[in-house]
Amino acid sequence: MLDRLEAIVGSKGLIVDPAEMEPWLTDWRGRRKGRALCVVQPATTAEVAAVVRLCAEERQPVFPVGGNTGLCYGAVPENGSDDRPGIVLSLRRMNRIRAIDRAGGVAAVDAGVVLGDLHTAALAAGRQFPLHLGSEGSAQIGGLISTNAGGTGVVRYGPMRDLVAGLEVVLPDGRVLDDMAALRKDNTGYMLRHLFIGAEGTLGIITGAALRLHPQTPNTAHAWVSVADPAAAVALLTAMQDRAGSAIQAFELVSASQFALVLRHVERIRIPFATLPAWSVMIELGSEDPTTQLDGVFEEVLGVGLEDGSVLDAVVATSQQQAEEFWHVRHSVSEANKKEGIGVVHDVAVRSADVAAFIASADMVAAERYPQATTQVVCHLGDGNVHYILMFQRDFWQTLPDGEAFALEVERAIHDVAARFSGTFSAEHGVGRKLTEELARLTDPVRYGLMLQLKQMFDPHGLMNPGSLFADRPA
Amino acid sequence: MLDRLEAIVGSKGLIVDPAEMEPWLTDWRGRRKGRALCVVQPATTAEVAAVVRLCAEERQPVFPVGGNTGLCYGAVPENGSDDRPGIVLSLRRMNRIRAIDRAGGVAAVDAGVVLGDLHTAALAAGRQFPLHLGSEGSAQIGGLISTNAGGTGVVRYGPMRDLVAGLEVVLPDGRVLDDMAALRKDNTGYMLRHLFIGAEGTLGIITGAALRLHPQTPNTAHAWVSVADPAAAVALLTAMQDRAGSAIQAFELVSASQFALVLRHVERIRIPFATLPAWSVMIELGSEDPTTQLDGVFEEVLGVGLEDGSVLDAVVATSQQQAEEFWHVRHSVSEANKKEGIGVVHDVAVRSADVAAFIASADMVAAERYPQATTQVVCHLGDGNVHYILMFQRDFWQTLPDGEAFALEVERAIHDVAARFSGTFSAEHGVGRKLTEELARLTDPVRYGLMLQLKQMFDPHGLMNPGSLFADRPA
Repeated sequence: MLDRLEAIVGSKGLIVDPAEMEPWLTDWRGRRKGRALCVVQPATTAEVAAVVRLCAEERQPVFPVGGNTGLCYGAVPENGSDDRPGIVLSLRRMNRIRAIDRAGGVAAVDAGVVLGDLHTAALAAGRQFPLHLGSEGSAQIGGLISTNAGGTGVVRYGPMRDLVAGLEVVLPDGRVLDDMAALRKDNTGYMLRHLFIGAEGTLGIITGAALRLHPQTPNTAHAWVSVADPAAAVALLTAMQDRAGSAIQAFELVSASQFALVLRHVERIRIPFATLPAWSVMIELGSEDPTTQLDGVFEEVLGVGLEDGSVLDAVVATSQQQAEEFWHVRHSVSEANKKEGIGVVHDVAVRSADVAAFIASADMVAAERYPQATTQVVCHLGDGNVHYILMFQRDFWQTLPDGEAFALEVERAIHDVAARFSGTFSAEHGVGRKLTEELARLTDPVRYGLMLQLKQMFDPHGLMNPGSLFADRPA
Repeated sequence: MLDRLEAIVGSKGLIVDPAEMEPWLTDWRGRRKGRALCVVQPATTAEVAAVVRLCAEERQPVFPVGGNTGLCYGAVPENGSDDRPGIVLSLRRMNRIRAIDRAGGVAAVDAGVVLGDLHTAALAAGRQFPLHLGSEGSAQIGGLISTNAGGTGVVRYGPMRDLVAGLEVVLPDGRVLDDMAALRKDNTGYMLRHLFIGAEGTLGIITGAALRLHPQTPNTAHAWVSVADPAAAVALLTAMQDRAGSAIQAFELVSASQFALVLRHVERIRIPFATLPAWSVMIELGSEDPTTQLDGVFEEVLGVGLEDGSVLDAVVATSQQQAEEFWHVRHSVSEANKKEGIGVVHDVAVRSADVAAFIASADMVAAERYPQATTQVVCHLGDGNVHYILMFQRDFWQTLPDGEAFALEVERAIHDVAARFSGTFSAEHGVGRKLTEELARLTDPVRYGLMLQLKQMFDPHGLMNPGSLFADRPA
């Protein structure tokens, strides 16, 4: 097997040394570890196809890995139900920006391109690629598509799914599906592309992508608004949509309990209010047009809100520096929470209009069942995506016989609240190997059954990233 | 069978009288006619499910019909390879707007809602549903989703696919897939929704949809620009995207040969130039923001073009009336062409950057093989969607032994040119029963094979709209 792999990818493309393999077997936070025969790094789509074909013949599992920045262990080569160790497949050598088509607004790239490099290339072409997240310096396009990555820009540009104009996929039998024409319109039968987006590598290996570029929006405006409760934030969202819906680039709702932790643990934090707002709404507007008066949009909408009492106070950034100070506070949440204690973070989504009711219900469950915890809310309100956090002190956590089991119990309780609002237990982080039981438990049985049939149809031998999405190989 | 159907839908929901059934058996242009046992009109999703379950048990084909406004015979109950007549299924009694969620920007509707009624409801809620086409007074949401309808707004808002936030589908075995939560973010496994969009009713019956609403854009500007050739139009598109990409609501390229026919055959046509431009570009910009200086965008971009010679002349509409006059000329194309002769119309798409080369190649094929024809070009340039037309005089056409066979030969020749540019033979009209052979001939075999597998998986007995997409039931 190793010889045949080396014949395909060369010695440069194969890692077999246990010490060198080490970082490929574990997630970046070091929480879970798998095992593998080797790490294979093909340099071309043809090499990927040959590797996958060989693995299909030999019935060896293939564990694809992108930048290994995920939160759900989707890239850890762990195959619960199976003894075969399999190979780790990395496309990091496939890091070429193939072409940029400015008229069509499309960049064709290898799947191993790092997100930050695509940002740079898009800017150089006078466009932007509007997907931004913390790990953009290492996250790769293939992984970002396979997990349908989100981020704060979803409210305007949608998640990765909305930015994919075409794919190149090596199917589980080694055939290549070439869907890279990137036509804006094509009505010739079933759209296969979307099956692979968010499939976490379980239906095939994405080797290339055509991605939509957008115009740059150098004209921006930023506001930090104090509101009494989440319902007032939803009303403000609706009013902003009425007046300037397509200019909303971020609309974040954060609880005072969360920013209090930031103030406690992070340096150089400036709050532009005398006291922390009970609930903060942070808004970014953007336009490619320099004549559009975005500050005027804020004045108008926030003025109405101040008058009718739905807005308590508001600060519009008067300089780029002040805008950066706003977002520095927002981006310091992770750091603060790490220092505070053990946070059980949820990634639920409900309809924006249900966010207030969801938070109220979750607060009741938390208060009743987990009085040891404080709760924090960080919410991409425009997408209804609530990172609802129960924060436990380390002292308490150390008394638990099994912290991981306890965390899962907490998560199930909050997922159940989201389900009551027809919400999802995984808005943007995915399922991976962490939430397979929740997927089986909470997914509508009709949909789950079709998912199993699709897995069986594409990957009858269960070789593509086994253990992710489904704990066991579908029967 | 008829008794059991009547037990489900009641006498109000069943048409068996041959004279009453007549209009349901033929396409709106009266070109093709099928046959059916009856026309069934359920009033609820549960009734649709019961009808489909009964048909599955009895192995009776189900031929869904929306507003019957398609161009490819997708709604004609013709099942080439099969003797079973089947039932026509219309959801016209399911015409309820279920709910409008302003904060989420989503309308939940029955599949039988007429597009124009959704427009009205969206406007009343202070939003717009931005899909517009000629048949909006009768086209139904279910059919528009099943054919992934396009139109001139695609350049800004995308086709129907981009406007669907959720679906309710009765599967071929009568189970109901409920995907109506309409969450903006949901990363819990395979995205099934997109399989049904554009599937032309061959994988199940869409009974409901959650559709994205957008902000209204009352601030608009319109320009009619004269350019020397399609390449100059592509350069202008790129320049407009640089300056105001997300404001472009229409970007239409039309040949002088086309507008000459409009001048010849249609009343009240005003051309704002002394002579017809060799190539006309008609642009609409729109913004929800009243302060954005859209005329200024035109001045700036067209000013540069006039200086460097890529733009020959340009008129920016100074009044709403003048803007309407511009678009009246554009919308008179169909009427003019019907009066002129027999037009063989193509619906190809290539990348915008390849449109100029495609037109040049198609012109060569047309001149060489069909010297009897004149050619006209109507192109949604922002989507690369070219309606390339070969116009034959009626006198010539009447000399043909088989007009339909000749038209198909012409189409194949032009489709082959599009294929050379990795283009598609059906950008927005779909496949239906008209282009099944072209689908089999021109689709990448890997993709076509997966499509057949999916059809087999969802509809193993081949009962859902048989004859559409695939001429014969997949083996």
